[in-house]
Amino acid sequence: MKSRKTIGVILFDKFEVLDVFGPVEMFGMLPDDFEVCMVAENSGEVASAQGPRIVAERNFSESSQYDILLVPGGAGTRRAVENNALLEWLRNQANNAQYVTSVCTGSAILAKAGLLDGKRATTNKMNFEWISAQGPNVIWVKQARWVEDGNTFTSAGVSAGMDMALGLIEKIIDGETADRIASWAEYDRHACDWDPFAKIHGLV
Amino acid sequence: MKSRKTIGVILFDKFEVLDVFGPVEMFGMLPDDFEVCMVAENSGEVASAQGPRIVAERNFSESSQYDILLVPGGAGTRRAVENNALLEWLRNQANNAQYVTSVCTGSAILAKAGLLDGKRATTNKMNFEWISAQGPNVIWVKQARWVEDGNTFTSAGVSAGMDMALGLIEKIIDGETADRIASWAEYDRHACDWDPFAKIHGLV
Repeated sequence: MKSRKTIGVILFDKFEVLDVFGPVEMFGMLPDDFEVCMVAENSGEVASAQGPRIVAERNFSESSQYDILLVPGGAGTRRAVENNALLEWLRNQANNAQYVTSVCTGSAILAKAGLLDGKRATTNKMNFEWISAQGPNVIWVKQARWVEDGNTFTSAGVSAGMDMALGLIEKIIDGETADRIASWAEYDRHACDWDPFAKIHGLV
Repeated sequence: MKSRKTIGVILFDKFEVLDVFGPVEMFGMLPDDFEVCMVAENSGEVASAQGPRIVAERNFSESSQYDILLVPGGAGTRRAVENNALLEWLRNQANNAQYVTSVCTGSAILAKAGLLDGKRATTNKMNFEWISAQGPNVIWVKQARWVEDGNTFTSAGVSAGMDMALGLIEKIIDGETADRIASWAEYDRHACDWDPFAKIHGLV
């Protein structure tokens, strides 16, 4: 991996804001080691599911290769899984990315692109049936805060993206750094096997 | 309060992304009851401390009155407390707002505007000395996840904004709604008196 790592955060219409900015907050606390790039099919403003618009400074037609990919979920996921330009771009990027990650229903997009086939993965706990149908060859884990399998990290719903990002930082750097970042952000970290929501939402 | 409530989220150069999008995620789950508006001194793109740019669709010269004000912190706070246009706009808005809230070092901005004088308030736990100096007449609380005093809600650092937002939702609507939203976001809620970080950062 290059000394300066690039994180390509994929934006699409009606993405979930916390799926994006929870991990971006954690990665942003790594001094100069990581560069966060907002990427969309077309450069410019992208509307989130919550309304606010974010600027994608990069687009799919550029040749940049990202070290880490982050795919959020949100209300726009159902259209995103039908977007062949997005799926094709993800497949091409994933070939050479060091890590491929998703938050919430973002794993449905990775699954639809075939990037989770034969792998263990999780997702949010409220739309499990629809999401798992996007990847019949994925080994879906019902109870997990996040799941690591090879170079893929998939997290549970929304807030779980922060724990997944800290888990990835622990993997790439060390646990002390991840703990320090959580403490700076006054964030209550959770382990990958912490998941009361699977039960709350009737999955286990 | 009007049936449709407007939340004015104040953006300034180098605001902290999670200070804004943690609460926006929680408020965004209230179906059609709340409208989140991004407001800045000038409309258009505003760069966060983490890099990504957000679009402010409203500006200070418009006459809109917001029901709830949310002031984030971030690296840009030190310049923001010297911005008289911002402080003046906040004082005018606060006169008629139902609730005035801040996340992290955002309370330094409210304090500098005089909006916390004589009130109890908290802030993040890493820059307590500088922040409290912005409001010598504020009763600063060293250990708290968030502090409610009259119509002001001030939260501790970064992640604490999510708990503060849920606390405000509990106040305005009810606890069941706040719990349901936390569960949708798979977020581990904390009470206002939960704060291990005051000790970690040597304040108590």
